[in-house]
Amino acid sequence: MLNEKAGKLRNMMKGEELIIGIGARDALDARIIENMGFDFVWSSSLGVSASYAVPDASLISMKQYLESARSMNEVTSIPVVVDADTGYGNANNVIYAVKRFEEAGIAAISIEDKKFPKDNSLLAGGRQELAPVEEFCGKIKAAKDTQKSEDFIVIARVEALIAGWGQEEAVQRAEAYVDAGADCILIHSKSSSSDEIVKFVSNWNSPAPLVLVPTTYPELTEEKIRKLGKVKMVIYANQTFRAAVKHTEEVLEEIKRAKGIHTIDAMVAPVSHVFELQGVPRMKENEGKYLIG
Amino acid sequence: MLNEKAGKLRNMMKGEELIIGIGARDALDARIIENMGFDFVWSSSLGVSASYAVPDASLISMKQYLESARSMNEVTSIPVVVDADTGYGNANNVIYAVKRFEEAGIAAISIEDKKFPKDNSLLAGGRQELAPVEEFCGKIKAAKDTQKSEDFIVIARVEALIAGWGQEEAVQRAEAYVDAGADCILIHSKSSSSDEIVKFVSNWNSPAPLVLVPTTYPELTEEKIRKLGKVKMVIYANQTFRAAVKHTEEVLEEIKRAKGIHTIDAMVAPVSHVFELQGVPRMKENEGKYLIG
Amino acid sequence: MLNEKAGKLRNMMKGEELIIGIGARDALDARIIENMGFDFVWSSSLGVSASYAVPDASLISMKQYLESARSMNEVTSIPVVVDADTGYGNANNVIYAVKRFEEAGIAAISIEDKKFPKDNSLLAGGRQELAPVEEFCGKIKAAKDTQKSEDFIVIARVEALIAGWGQEEAVQRAEAYVDAGADCILIHSKSSSSDEIVKFVSNWNSPAPLVLVPTTYPELTEEKIRKLGKVKMVIYANQTFRAAVKHTEEVLEEIKRAKGIHTIDAMVAPVSHVFELQGVPRMKENEGKYLIG
Amino acid sequence: MLNEKAGKLRNMMKGEELIIGIGARDALDARIIENMGFDFVWSSSLGVSASYAVPDASLISMKQYLESARSMNEVTSIPVVVDADTGYGNANNVIYAVKRFEEAGIAAISIEDKKFPKDNSLLAGGRQELAPVEEFCGKIKAAKDTQKSEDFIVIARVEALIAGWGQEEAVQRAEAYVDAGADCILIHSKSSSSDEIVKFVSNWNSPAPLVLVPTTYPELTEEKIRKLGKVKMVIYANQTFRAAVKHTEEVLEEIKRAKGIHTIDAMVAPVSHVFELQGVPRMKENEGKYLIG
Repeated sequence: MLNEKAGKLRNMMKGEELIIGIGARDALDARIIENMGFDFVWSSSLGVSASYAVPDASLISMKQYLESARSMNEVTSIPVVVDADTGYGNANNVIYAVKRFEEAGIAAISIEDKKFPKDNSLLAGGRQELAPVEEFCGKIKAAKDTQKSEDFIVIARVEALIAGWGQEEAVQRAEAYVDAGADCILIHSKSSSSDEIVKFVSNWNSPAPLVLVPTTYPELTEEKIRKLGKVKMVIYANQTFRAAVKHTEEVLEEIKRAKGIHTIDAMVAPVSHVFELQGVPRMKENEGKYLIG
Repeated sequence: MLNEKAGKLRNMMKGEELIIGIGARDALDARIIENMGFDFVWSSSLGVSASYAVPDASLISMKQYLESARSMNEVTSIPVVVDADTGYGNANNVIYAVKRFEEAGIAAISIEDKKFPKDNSLLAGGRQELAPVEEFCGKIKAAKDTQKSEDFIVIARVEALIAGWGQEEAVQRAEAYVDAGADCILIHSKSSSSDEIVKFVSNWNSPAPLVLVPTTYPELTEEKIRKLGKVKMVIYANQTFRAAVKHTEEVLEEIKRAKGIHTIDAMVAPVSHVFELQGVPRMKENEGKYLIG
Repeated sequence: MLNEKAGKLRNMMKGEELIIGIGARDALDARIIENMGFDFVWSSSLGVSASYAVPDASLISMKQYLESARSMNEVTSIPVVVDADTGYGNANNVIYAVKRFEEAGIAAISIEDKKFPKDNSLLAGGRQELAPVEEFCGKIKAAKDTQKSEDFIVIARVEALIAGWGQEEAVQRAEAYVDAGADCILIHSKSSSSDEIVKFVSNWNSPAPLVLVPTTYPELTEEKIRKLGKVKMVIYANQTFRAAVKHTEEVLEEIKRAKGIHTIDAMVAPVSHVFELQGVPRMKENEGKYLIG
Repeated sequence: MLNEKAGKLRNMMKGEELIIGIGARDALDARIIENMGFDFVWSSSLGVSASYAVPDASLISMKQYLESARSMNEVTSIPVVVDADTGYGNANNVIYAVKRFEEAGIAAISIEDKKFPKDNSLLAGGRQELAPVEEFCGKIKAAKDTQKSEDFIVIARVEALIAGWGQEEAVQRAEAYVDAGADCILIHSKSSSSDEIVKFVSNWNSPAPLVLVPTTYPELTEEKIRKLGKVKMVIYANQTFRAAVKHTEEVLEEIKRAKGIHTIDAMVAPVSHVFELQGVPRMKENEGKYLIG
């Protein structure tokens, strides 16, 4: 099987540049992300569950995450990388998920070493229980053995820092996951300082590239990350929908105040721009060609 | 069958106040709309198709519109009114749709008198073909005979002004639809002036209330609409996702420029606010109660 | 909230008769089950996963089980009881599932005291791990506190005999689940003799009625079950799709042999009967009424 | 893009043998069809709508037909050919559908020259309205221009005989569709004699191969079809689920009579066979390999 987008992502990874991915809540976000020139779409578990207004705690089903990722992939030409939580259960679930996501044309999935059902990693007071290392290595092996294209990428996400188990545990787990076949390590942190992550990177001696998600430590800019070395991907995982929430609330506040929509024109995109994002111009060309109407 | 939200909407319609609905693209929008104090959610056909980045032209299936509306309804306590396009085919399709939407707890649907597959009403150069009056009256009768709760509301949407068929046609159609059983008339216009709509309202003599969607004529504020009389509902159909598109693009532009997320904190909602919109606090209460973890 | 079908099921349970439910793989099975005069449809986890040709091991998502049960419910007037496995995760997942199933008009759900992801109970050599009693009681409490209609029924399914933990454990668990709020106890066994089940029933002293699934001990007929007392529901959980598999294979074998369909007419239902099961006659009546075509 | 299954189907079409396809209602049927050694699965519109117990009249959404076909394709290694009705609307809908079905790995689609919403072709007294030839040629061109793999096959289904428009119209339409790019012609008939079809075949002079669906004229065996020449595919479109309906009813009748399941063992497949069809043995092998449990 050929997975064209996985090939694209592998190619990017061979280059010198940091690869920048942006989290999406749906296909509309995904298309905007591609239009703005970013490298890949992150089908965010937080984003997709937020689009349902349901907690990011393994409530929304794998099928719904799959359909969201598929719809993002259908309308973009850049790779889509899926945040696949814990793999939705045990290694059987991982095998099932890898088949489905790869058939959907997804370039890569990330699975994390927490127990199912998970809690969001950034949640204060969240349940952050780690799975045994061997069990999670089984999932990684299962994923790698299942993929049909050579290019499909499996990212192992290490939650040891999130769970408060310390640097040593984090590094040992990451190494074990690489040994089990992981293509990259996503090392996650919810510290408001980047020290924790910088330390992990400096301790990292494996050739497997690292992936960072600097939501809580924004001072770690791309320039600084480049200097650290070893990091290949950066994911800005949730800014699109956080932007949407903030401004949607502002616009609704103003409509409420003004008792009408006469004052908000400059606050919103024109309808014609929404039409463009939906691909209406291409459809209209087709209508001429295929005698529609 | 009891349809609690249809009952709520009927009650609002008995009051003196204008009822204000806001268009949503998904459940997250819907929850924001409720939080901001509006009266109902409009499950927008443009919004839902935009969430898929697919043209609003009967491409996304009825099943997808149904699932989107259902997910909006699941997370709100205000009524959800569904933009059901042309009813997705003929009167058989309307019957099928009314059963499914009512079972989903939807309070009202709007069906429009265009032919399937439709084009978006605001699209410059769009295909705007009207169905024969008798055929559309058949759909309205079918919808009204199908609903199981007394309270479910069927809004007939008149596209004669959109199609350029003139005031007389618009009024005659609207009257025929009321005779066929429509509870309200949504009279749509894409004129950049409100004259067309104001004229229609002044010509309207039926007791059936009117619904307006002032996207292209924002100068018609709620105060002015109240003075016109006869209008019971106003729908701001697309401002939420137009706000989201604009600001998501701005934030991504800034990330691109700054090469990091260190400058955009004030531009986005905090993650904790997203958690609230997802109902995380309620879930956390339950965890204490039901021994989770 | 009113749950009409749960009300129907409660009413049946007040009567003297055994209530007989039949397992379904999809809505077509469900309609046949109603037509044949049975009391309720069992939305079988084995049946639904079999309809996907995927193992019954928590691979198919809750969303897919929900949609299958919903489609069964849409086309029947008898109650649909859902085999909801372990509740799809922890008590948060149970809360989420109860909301969704009840909104879908489902009359009752059964949840079992195994760990997620489960294995089919009848599978030789299957993983049959029981959840701690307190944890499962948390799920039952969560389900009962979540239901909105008084009539919705929560069946606690005891897998202690399946797991080989013995009678005493089975009874203690069943009693704890009733104390936690379960409306009925489904006591499951994969023994080829009914002795195990008969013993459990004779040891049962709680007023909560029992539910039996005699797949592996068919000698326990309804007459014998009635004599045992205490049992209120019997579920023939998988005979419909096992019948379908057998005969579909026979007919395909014959087509293969005969190299054509000229010999199989008496082996298959007429197309017109399929049309009836699909509700075509009702649709055709509507076409006359609503000017279709 | 590579479409492996379309390649397989093209290869079969180059051979001398008749290619035999069997209609399926779901993935379980599909897996049985492959196991029995047939050449391809026909994702039947009648079968899928029957699985929902809903009339085959464009009520079930394109999304649902897509998901059914996808689930059939996921569990088989033989090609899946999709009965895509009228293409679900106009040429825009065809373009959208071809993208989605091809991404799902479907080998071929059949689209028919009736108006949307369609009625089942075999329905006595059904609405059988043909689309204008030019309009339908637009759909075929659109489909062929949209497919990404060279191998994907577009079957144009001619309903002129079904609609009673006669042989001449049927041949002219079929020729026009081939000129527009159709890979094969499915010529449909609901006559209880094969004369109508035999006549069409004898009048057919185009190199494009024909597809027959002998539901109503079973006397046309494969041997006779082979002698006619020009026909490449035969589809037994609905025998699987008609077999299932008949025998499911028989087994339920017997359960009702016997008041138990003690007499039906020989009438149903063993549970272990259902497990095999679900792929349980392969899953169990994996469990050993990946440390599950």
